Amino acid sequence: MAIVLIPIATGFEEIEAVSLIDILRRAEIKVIVASVKENLQVQGANGIMIVADRVMDGITSNDIDMILLPGGWGGTDILAKDDKVQNLLKDMNSKGKDISAICAAPYALDKAGVLANNFTCYPSVEDKIDSNGYNSTDKVVEDGNIITSQGPGTAICLGLYIVKKYQGEEQYQALKEGLLANFCK
Amino acid sequence: MAIVLIPIATGFEEIEAVSLIDILRRAEIKVIVASVKENLQVQGANGIMIVADRVMDGITSNDIDMILLPGGWGGTDILAKDDKVQNLLKDMNSKGKDISAICAAPYALDKAGVLANNFTCYPSVEDKIDSNGYNSTDKVVEDGNIITSQGPGTAICLGLYIVKKYQGEEQYQALKEGLLANFCK
Repeated sequence: MAIVLIPIATGFEEIEAVSLIDILRRAEIKVIVASVKENLQVQGANGIMIVADRVMDGITSNDIDMILLPGGWGGTDILAKDDKVQNLLKDMNSKGKDISAICAAPYALDKAGVLANNFTCYPSVEDKIDSNGYNSTDKVVEDGNIITSQGPGTAICLGLYIVKKYQGEEQYQALKEGLLANFCK
Repeated sequence: MAIVLIPIATGFEEIEAVSLIDILRRAEIKVIVASVKENLQVQGANGIMIVADRVMDGITSNDIDMILLPGGWGGTDILAKDDKVQNLLKDMNSKGKDISAICAAPYALDKAGVLANNFTCYPSVEDKIDSNGYNSTDKVVEDGNIITSQGPGTAICLGLYIVKKYQGEEQYQALKEGLLANFCK
């Protein structure tokens, strides 16, 4: 069973984080929701408080198959500055392990120096990113071990993309139909 | 400012509840997330725990402009049996005030006898509903004071529909663009 770590910090975008957790768990991928700070209760950008499973401390690249960052500017800014998150991104990347980010969060990958050449993100965030390979058309972009996506309206599609990658086409199709998400490719 | 009550109970569908709360708050609609039981921490169908703003007790139809029910079978079953929720639905309806439900939750409206003739819901849930006017094609159906929608993949569109109703076309368009939700009508 694949294990995906989703770090959350104050100001995370709630539709993105929750859509990703929900969909991966529906596909029986193990999701660890980890608070970047000490408090397990973490408030999102729109005032929704969710309870993390644990804190980040003690999680290493050996424990997980993917690190997946939700967006939201407040949360992304914390993820881009937090040593634990930044070091884990670098360590995952040095081992060629999967890294994903949506919306503003590709900025946190760029800060760690792990963003792939071909990527997408929330429109305008590309201006803050050094990498030049911004793709404005695709909802999800995969380049090597890095998977990026655009924003709240593409979060379900990113979740389904990761389901297809880890659990295969059949489960992807079943879940896409079950979610009524025919707008995803 | 419109005030929307979103009651949540164990087993609520997380993408639906969170997308609706998130989008209405982005549009500066006041959202009250109320736990149907005593605990403010309420666990969704996919193990995501969110923290409600308050409990249901004490909320009357005078306090709110709309009651909006997220789906998920476990949560819906509780909403369909809970006296406070059922009485509030009846009271809202008798005053012609707005009622909305998504996914499995139109079943809870049907139990309260407030479901409109024309409605939609999660496919197959219509079999458990007495009303005959099931619409399988539209993501959002409005009939009188009752607005229904289909499931996780239509939650963003339902949120935007309610934004248009209360805040107007301009804010609807801006938010639809901001969410990257061009799949909504």
